[in-house]
Amino acid sequence: MIYFNCDYTEGCHPNILKRLCETNMMQTVGYGEDEICDLARAKIRKACGREDVDVHFLVGGTQTNATVIAAILRPHQGALSADTGHINVHETGAVEATGHKVLPLSSTPDGKITAEQVENAYLAHVNDASFEHMVQPKLVYISLPTENGGLYSKAELTALHDVCTRCGLYLFIDGARLGYGLTAPENDVTLADLCALSDVFYIGGTKVGALFGEAVVITNPALKTDFRYHIKQRGGMLAKGRLLGIQFDELFTDDLYFKISEKAVRQAKRIAKACEDAGCAFFAPSPTNQQFPIFPDTALEKLAEKYKYSYWARVDETHSAVRLCTSWATTDENVDALCKDIASIMAE
Amino acid sequence: MIYFNCDYTEGCHPNILKRLCETNMMQTVGYGEDEICDLARAKIRKACGREDVDVHFLVGGTQTNATVIAAILRPHQGALSADTGHINVHETGAVEATGHKVLPLSSTPDGKITAEQVENAYLAHVNDASFEHMVQPKLVYISLPTENGGLYSKAELTALHDVCTRCGLYLFIDGARLGYGLTAPENDVTLADLCALSDVFYIGGTKVGALFGEAVVITNPALKTDFRYHIKQRGGMLAKGRLLGIQFDELFTDDLYFKISEKAVRQAKRIAKACEDAGCAFFAPSPTNQQFPIFPDTALEKLAEKYKYSYWARVDETHSAVRLCTSWATTDENVDALCKDIASIMAE
Amino acid sequence: MIYFNCDYTEGCHPNILKRLCETNMMQTVGYGEDEICDLARAKIRKACGREDVDVHFLVGGTQTNATVIAAILRPHQGALSADTGHINVHETGAVEATGHKVLPLSSTPDGKITAEQVENAYLAHVNDASFEHMVQPKLVYISLPTENGGLYSKAELTALHDVCTRCGLYLFIDGARLGYGLTAPENDVTLADLCALSDVFYIGGTKVGALFGEAVVITNPALKTDFRYHIKQRGGMLAKGRLLGIQFDELFTDDLYFKISEKAVRQAKRIAKACEDAGCAFFAPSPTNQQFPIFPDTALEKLAEKYKYSYWARVDETHSAVRLCTSWATTDENVDALCKDIASIMAE
Amino acid sequence: MIYFNCDYTEGCHPNILKRLCETNMMQTVGYGEDEICDLARAKIRKACGREDVDVHFLVGGTQTNATVIAAILRPHQGALSADTGHINVHETGAVEATGHKVLPLSSTPDGKITAEQVENAYLAHVNDASFEHMVQPKLVYISLPTENGGLYSKAELTALHDVCTRCGLYLFIDGARLGYGLTAPENDVTLADLCALSDVFYIGGTKVGALFGEAVVITNPALKTDFRYHIKQRGGMLAKGRLLGIQFDELFTDDLYFKISEKAVRQAKRIAKACEDAGCAFFAPSPTNQQFPIFPDTALEKLAEKYKYSYWARVDETHSAVRLCTSWATTDENVDALCKDIASIMAE
Repeated sequence: MIYFNCDYTEGCHPNILKRLCETNMMQTVGYGEDEICDLARAKIRKACGREDVDVHFLVGGTQTNATVIAAILRPHQGALSADTGHINVHETGAVEATGHKVLPLSSTPDGKITAEQVENAYLAHVNDASFEHMVQPKLVYISLPTENGGLYSKAELTALHDVCTRCGLYLFIDGARLGYGLTAPENDVTLADLCALSDVFYIGGTKVGALFGEAVVITNPALKTDFRYHIKQRGGMLAKGRLLGIQFDELFTDDLYFKISEKAVRQAKRIAKACEDAGCAFFAPSPTNQQFPIFPDTALEKLAEKYKYSYWARVDETHSAVRLCTSWATTDENVDALCKDIASIMAE
Repeated sequence: MIYFNCDYTEGCHPNILKRLCETNMMQTVGYGEDEICDLARAKIRKACGREDVDVHFLVGGTQTNATVIAAILRPHQGALSADTGHINVHETGAVEATGHKVLPLSSTPDGKITAEQVENAYLAHVNDASFEHMVQPKLVYISLPTENGGLYSKAELTALHDVCTRCGLYLFIDGARLGYGLTAPENDVTLADLCALSDVFYIGGTKVGALFGEAVVITNPALKTDFRYHIKQRGGMLAKGRLLGIQFDELFTDDLYFKISEKAVRQAKRIAKACEDAGCAFFAPSPTNQQFPIFPDTALEKLAEKYKYSYWARVDETHSAVRLCTSWATTDENVDALCKDIASIMAE
Repeated sequence: MIYFNCDYTEGCHPNILKRLCETNMMQTVGYGEDEICDLARAKIRKACGREDVDVHFLVGGTQTNATVIAAILRPHQGALSADTGHINVHETGAVEATGHKVLPLSSTPDGKITAEQVENAYLAHVNDASFEHMVQPKLVYISLPTENGGLYSKAELTALHDVCTRCGLYLFIDGARLGYGLTAPENDVTLADLCALSDVFYIGGTKVGALFGEAVVITNPALKTDFRYHIKQRGGMLAKGRLLGIQFDELFTDDLYFKISEKAVRQAKRIAKACEDAGCAFFAPSPTNQQFPIFPDTALEKLAEKYKYSYWARVDETHSAVRLCTSWATTDENVDALCKDIASIMAE
Repeated sequence: MIYFNCDYTEGCHPNILKRLCETNMMQTVGYGEDEICDLARAKIRKACGREDVDVHFLVGGTQTNATVIAAILRPHQGALSADTGHINVHETGAVEATGHKVLPLSSTPDGKITAEQVENAYLAHVNDASFEHMVQPKLVYISLPTENGGLYSKAELTALHDVCTRCGLYLFIDGARLGYGLTAPENDVTLADLCALSDVFYIGGTKVGALFGEAVVITNPALKTDFRYHIKQRGGMLAKGRLLGIQFDELFTDDLYFKISEKAVRQAKRIAKACEDAGCAFFAPSPTNQQFPIFPDTALEKLAEKYKYSYWARVDETHSAVRLCTSWATTDENVDALCKDIASIMAE
């Protein structure tokens, strides 16, 4: 069985494994205050072109989202999110468990929301006579790329940033798959842009080469105070914090993070082309490592004999959309096989 | 200025005020364990035709909703609700502040949800491969009447009850305006039905004759344990608990609760007829004390000189829907005046 | 049976009842935005000698404590409190239910904590290498008078204020029985002092003449923003908010609040003297309306035939401390009877 | 610099690292549902001698404590704990952040609480007239070994189990350092005993050979339902869950977990003996891998030039207690050096 169902089916990039082995018996202090974490933080700051940002390492995405959002909001405030957003759908209510409502906005098919939607939500709140009876929108949560593979352009991000500034909202970018977004050919956004346009974002490691780990970058000085307390309270402070430092230090050595991401995107495009060539439509457009082709159910049954995919949505009585993912670990051989099998199954 | 904007613009029914005066210097124990609360509980049990239900008195609706829901759910569970439901829109995230997600379902124009929607939501959850990554639906919250004036029929309630039983969900009925629902001519539901068909519901006092107060009726034995702890923890345990007992004891003496509700509904229907006669359409159908007529904005401006109403929604560029409420306290004179003015303003 | 067990055994002062009757059919807007609430707020501001404070009305003490504390603290911060403090012992974990730890300090027998204890707790935190692994003390909660009847002198309050300023802590004063404290002969603190020395405090109504209600006075501008959202979210926003306005407007007309408090304290002192004359020791010294005499258990049995008291603590195998409370409603006759019976029972 | 300050200064046991390398490119499903996790679960069940227990893997201790406690308790319930317990002191209020009060009991010097204390706390609650105004004790949290190195005997655990059964409380055992407890010569408790005597406990990996990870063993069937939802909601569900499976599978192959623990304890005893021989008293007795000797401050200054220790407590003006830890990774050479230096420094 070959797995294309998600982007966390293997372990980690060999460079990381090598470094783990080399450093294994080294003694360090715990909780991310060691020298390797400092190295990794320095490299991330450099990649961002910003010495003044705070960098923290957490273990996973749900944990990171809940920790950041709970650290920012006061009790009566909520987070605007695409209704398809990870925090709204796939985190078992982790944000609500910290006391905050997720305020859903209708997303585009590829999982995005617009500056206009945010402004309208803000205005609807402040202009409602009962505003004190409603959750106050205070933070905008977006994913880059989105859960549906979509990308925000620099113009779209700038518009979101501007409306947030105007309305006194914070912009938080979930970058669980950030590498696969930044290296998509269609992308025009850089790490420096994310620093300039958001208050806080994170660079996903779990899905992009690491065993686990997300690097939170806080650019808004008001959000920096006491952040480590929040990490600890929400269970995200790894005792052997250096494990996170090791991973991000390797990922940000010689652009490894971007090189492996770029390759995964290239392979996803090969799969997309194979689908297209075979006559598949797509559930949502995606320039990133996740592809959402629509297949006849009969074809899916045959694919399932050899490949694992994620069932995404029923499209009509005989067709379904699935998700096919590549990652830093996807081999050329597996992509070749998949493309060939798609062609032959669809040709039947 | 005459107020039709909501159903809590006056104090309380004179019988209650009289009793408050008579009992003022009486000494009782606190926290609802006094003899007057016991009397009131007995009368409510009798009105329900059920000696085995637990009755608790809380101060207000938001408090009651959050207390009941937090008492029932485990941390990973959420409450299915109409998207227009009070807990989803107008309680400043009180349910989320207890850690639980409100799971919105698209409501009908008059604010209802169906058994089918509930079943679909339940099935969508259990059939999703990622179910553990999503909030588990465990409770269905409905309002009777709804926030938009709608009524559930006995058949609809029975269907909701049946699907809840089948799916292991609790059914909780917010009866903030219960009197105005049960006494609507179109209604075919009784207190006994509510006991039989829900796990817990409440009889609203704040909007129906009392100064404040909601009487929670718990029918499901599993939900009775330790409920008073929850009342205390959520700030709903009134030190001078007898105040709630006095009010509900009076409301449930000689059917006062139903008599005053019935009159308010009758007056609402007079207002509805005046709107209809004047050519108004309605935003949502309502057989209860809240009416949602659509007026030209110019007419609303004139009405506003003499009457307070709640602005409800923009309908088109020149028309808006408003809410006009009656209550136990609405006088015939004020209704006469309003009806006459609607006719004349709309005739201009 | 005559009740001395607590200070909320009767209804409300007759002036309030009269005003409730007079205003009953008046139409007002809801949620505390009516003209009577405005009058009450103005009178409280005047009594405080401060036009710049925000005044909010909530229903009860537990609700007020949880709402204020949750509004102030960020998730990783906690409230320093006497271990005997109401929030630590008698609110079913309402503060913890908002996510915050109560950080207990050993209290004096009369329920107080000192500036030195606060400073030590603060220093212990900031000087601990693991400070980020511990709840950050950020707010000091004291009761005036305390749960055990104790009073803070102006010097003690000033010392607490100074240490809070030095350490960046907020000082919150629970004044559930404030009237009985401010009118004690031993007291040297005024409302103006409370405004100057605390960030937020409240003036208790429930135990001092009202049916219910607590008036929160926010003096620190940083804590004023959005406070009404918090009241709503925590279930404390009364629909018929004017009920709170009516009560506090009457209590702050012609110094009624202070006059009725002063009389209750005088009566408590008569009871204390009767106990002393009869040879009783006291569990804790109290210059306020709560007295904590120690009786032989045999004497308590006899007292219990005619009087209700609160059992407080076992002192030794044959003696117990009880609480005897007076209030604005305590009659001279009942005090006479109690004093006489204490003398005769103890003389047996 | 040689680190004896804590038991998580190195990476992981070489067997684990080897297995990580071997399995790195293997494709598995995520979230702990892979075949390696199944292997590890089977080995743990076997080590426990119980096929009917549920085993779940979480990343760290604070996360595990908060997840288990929040999964078990209803909102009005709290956790009894030694006042020195990790949840009460060193988790930044993680339990309170889930809404629950930690109810502290005075611990012995070595960090334990007794069945009698638990029973008294339970009885004090149920016999208090105001019990509904107080947090209901429902769970007993103990650490084995404790934060201060103490061990519960089988008799003590049995007594705790019995009182919990009698009072309807759950017993939860934090085994962050379980290996170092079970392999202490003084210990008479087995994994099978823990299964029989507790409702849920965990086997710590982070401090005992793993990179990270805690294996939760649920023995009480009532606590098994839906536990994975809670793991996800609290941020503990690792995407690449197999990493936890790999680690515990190795630790429970050929008794590795016990062998490495036993050696660490032996080394700790050598250090303890060196301290004793040098004339040190101990802050608390400990038969486990943590030792708490008392040194003159002058000696500590000298030790600090070469060794890292944890400062524990000031004992008098010239003496302090420190913590010296061994772990699975502690080398004989480092222990030799430390013992020798302690002898020579103390001899000066």
